[in-house]
Amino acid sequence: MRNILIIGAGKSSSSLIRYLLEKSDSEKIHVTIGDISKNNAEKLINNHKNASAIVLDVFKKNQRESALKNANIVISMLPARHHLLVAKDCIKFKKHLVTASYISEEMKKLDDETKKNGLIFMNEIGVDPGIDHMSAMKVIDRVRNKNGKMLLFESFTGGLVAPESDTNLWNYKFTWNPRNVVLAGQGGSAKFIQEGTYKYIPYHKLFRRTEFLTIDNHKFEAYANRDSLKYRSIYGLDNIPTMYRGTIRKVGFSRAWNIFVQLGMTDDSYTIENSENMSYRDFVNLFLAYSPTDSVELKLRSYLKIDQDDVMWEKLIELDLFNPNKKIGLKNATPAQILQKILEDSWTLQKEDKDMIVMQHLFGYEIAGKKYQIESSLTVLGENQTYTAMAKTVGLPVAIASLKILNKEIKTPGVQRPITKEVYEPILNELEKYGIKFTEKEVPYLGYNPNTLA
Amino acid sequence: MRNILIIGAGKSSSSLIRYLLEKSDSEKIHVTIGDISKNNAEKLINNHKNASAIVLDVFKKNQRESALKNANIVISMLPARHHLLVAKDCIKFKKHLVTASYISEEMKKLDDETKKNGLIFMNEIGVDPGIDHMSAMKVIDRVRNKNGKMLLFESFTGGLVAPESDTNLWNYKFTWNPRNVVLAGQGGSAKFIQEGTYKYIPYHKLFRRTEFLTIDNHKFEAYANRDSLKYRSIYGLDNIPTMYRGTIRKVGFSRAWNIFVQLGMTDDSYTIENSENMSYRDFVNLFLAYSPTDSVELKLRSYLKIDQDDVMWEKLIELDLFNPNKKIGLKNATPAQILQKILEDSWTLQKEDKDMIVMQHLFGYEIAGKKYQIESSLTVLGENQTYTAMAKTVGLPVAIASLKILNKEIKTPGVQRPITKEVYEPILNELEKYGIKFTEKEVPYLGYNPNTLA
Repeated sequence: MRNILIIGAGKSSSSLIRYLLEKSDSEKIHVTIGDISKNNAEKLINNHKNASAIVLDVFKKNQRESALKNANIVISMLPARHHLLVAKDCIKFKKHLVTASYISEEMKKLDDETKKNGLIFMNEIGVDPGIDHMSAMKVIDRVRNKNGKMLLFESFTGGLVAPESDTNLWNYKFTWNPRNVVLAGQGGSAKFIQEGTYKYIPYHKLFRRTEFLTIDNHKFEAYANRDSLKYRSIYGLDNIPTMYRGTIRKVGFSRAWNIFVQLGMTDDSYTIENSENMSYRDFVNLFLAYSPTDSVELKLRSYLKIDQDDVMWEKLIELDLFNPNKKIGLKNATPAQILQKILEDSWTLQKEDKDMIVMQHLFGYEIAGKKYQIESSLTVLGENQTYTAMAKTVGLPVAIASLKILNKEIKTPGVQRPITKEVYEPILNELEKYGIKFTEKEVPYLGYNPNTLA
Repeated sequence: MRNILIIGAGKSSSSLIRYLLEKSDSEKIHVTIGDISKNNAEKLINNHKNASAIVLDVFKKNQRESALKNANIVISMLPARHHLLVAKDCIKFKKHLVTASYISEEMKKLDDETKKNGLIFMNEIGVDPGIDHMSAMKVIDRVRNKNGKMLLFESFTGGLVAPESDTNLWNYKFTWNPRNVVLAGQGGSAKFIQEGTYKYIPYHKLFRRTEFLTIDNHKFEAYANRDSLKYRSIYGLDNIPTMYRGTIRKVGFSRAWNIFVQLGMTDDSYTIENSENMSYRDFVNLFLAYSPTDSVELKLRSYLKIDQDDVMWEKLIELDLFNPNKKIGLKNATPAQILQKILEDSWTLQKEDKDMIVMQHLFGYEIAGKKYQIESSLTVLGENQTYTAMAKTVGLPVAIASLKILNKEIKTPGVQRPITKEVYEPILNELEKYGIKFTEKEVPYLGYNPNTLA
């Protein structure tokens, strides 16, 4: 028996654990799940004979070390900021490590030591980052092998509600951390490059500069991610003229979300006095000019130039934003925290609701003077509230990578992300068996420059 | 002879030094001016017999200490962040200190020690902060002495170009640190209170939520300062229903400035690759959608919905913003730095240009059930490029305060700002002799609530 230690039995661990337990007999593995709540871990194990639950408080050195010693590989499903504690122990006890999080500066610094010890620290192997890296590099490498030159790479990902559960005017529900949704795009201008021209979009314009895309005959929109430029070096596309990454929403979401941005309701940098006893209506009024007579509704419409019969207006009404009786009930909260609370009233997944992950890449390239474009798309639906699309697309690549490291199919040591063929090929193949499969089609090369069209 | 040490012979020291030297015989004072450039100091002294120039690098302990030892009072005209070095020496050598800067947290902590040693550390005694504090407290104290209850306090200040030198479409030139103008309003929402209702304006809306005011029959506009709320406790107006502070511009400035904000050109948080060789036109294009055919001009007008015959458009043209040949010439600059450079081409004061300081306070109050409102206004014109309105309004209160401390007319020790009668009364009286005089008039009480009008 080989031992796999999973630290953290949260939302994203369900599919990961299911996969490993299904394989546990044939692969001769035992899975230990450590969580601060043993109960969380036990629920996901559901009495499986090849698994055990332990209490693991990652801040307690003895708990961490005794769990780690017995493992052959460690999977950290903790919040990203806690990986480093685990990573340092993994070096001490010479264990491989897998996480779905972005490589931090501190993690990167462990590269030398992992290599010296022949250890694999595989990161960014969830959905985004993760499946996006793998599916992109698969096509990019193929283009390179044909001596093609990459001209354009655009990549879009979104966590949405499944069409069958899409029941509100926003076509949106929280399928993941609501706080990240409220704060999305903050902390600096979005940066990308199109046809060799750098482009910068400030936060307050981000949701008005969307792009449209079509996936499986459904129309979507996307707003730009913070820093698309850094992916040039990650993917080895340093001189590519067009590089753009974005977040997918249903059409019309961003235009309405922009109302909150314009009002200042997504601000997380200061707290509101007396927020606890304020009504939703009072909250809205904080961001509008004072008037002894005009209604909050009219002031908002006039300020942001929203017609009364605009669906944007109905979206606000749907959220019960102008209710004078509903209390916020949060002490000294920031505008962003209050907005999150209001949205959670309307956008929390109901028991039967299902989620959906959509992803699309566009690859533009040139071979022997001829230009091509490939569109590669993925849709994954959640099964239920435990085995969500998010849990599947995050957990399965993590699980598969862990097993393949254990089986020495993936063997290059170092702190890495899944961008080499050794890693992405076997994992993408296995993912296809679980319905995570991209549909590729060749489309006319469009780029960003209609003039270059033949 | 009493010795006054002035540290820093920059732009704002001219009127300060002139005032003290004019009084030097009658007051029996010698003025020592220490600057990192002795030449700067000598220019302002102009061979006056009661003054001497010394080299003083504030980071050199021996230079600082030997200059300080001989002084009876120290005036620091250094950038605010360097005051603390001087302040600590002043405690060591038991010297009074005067600065025109906001009281920092570190400065505040010296309060006990100054009191223990009977020292006066007078801060915020320039124009804003300074003259605003004094002229406001004079009226507020008068209302209190009549058992009046303050209902409203609004205060506006602006550094502008004098009408005779007002030669561009923006009605604006840089009369002080241009960087502060470009970054104005950044770093958090503007916060104030009107008729008991808190109001928050995010940065990207700040320049669209202006208020109008009239000073000496000239119409102005003002945008809200960052934090008006903290002035409630400073002025002892904790329960006042309306407290608003703003920055004055000529009407139409803010609406046009908003273009830069909307585009993202005032962002100081990231640098632009290859900024040095970029043209002004390229710079503008960074913030607009990519198009192989549409002009930068049309893209900007369409994006921000500016009509071709709107004066806002002419304001942009006046700045030569779309010039494809003018190079930025700044390496790895932030958008804000580049914008500053472009504006300095057009907004730098010419040799004969004069500046102007305007200030207006509105005081609303109630006495015996009757409501009153006082409007108190100030206009100060610069004489030339040395004795500017800014230098006069910053330097004269500093000079007068220093002399009155030396003469023990101001004698309460501690780290303080000029909000007590002991301080503001003699200084305001003296300022009037130099043409810095507020015009007061009683106006109907307006408040923010027309319904309460009789």
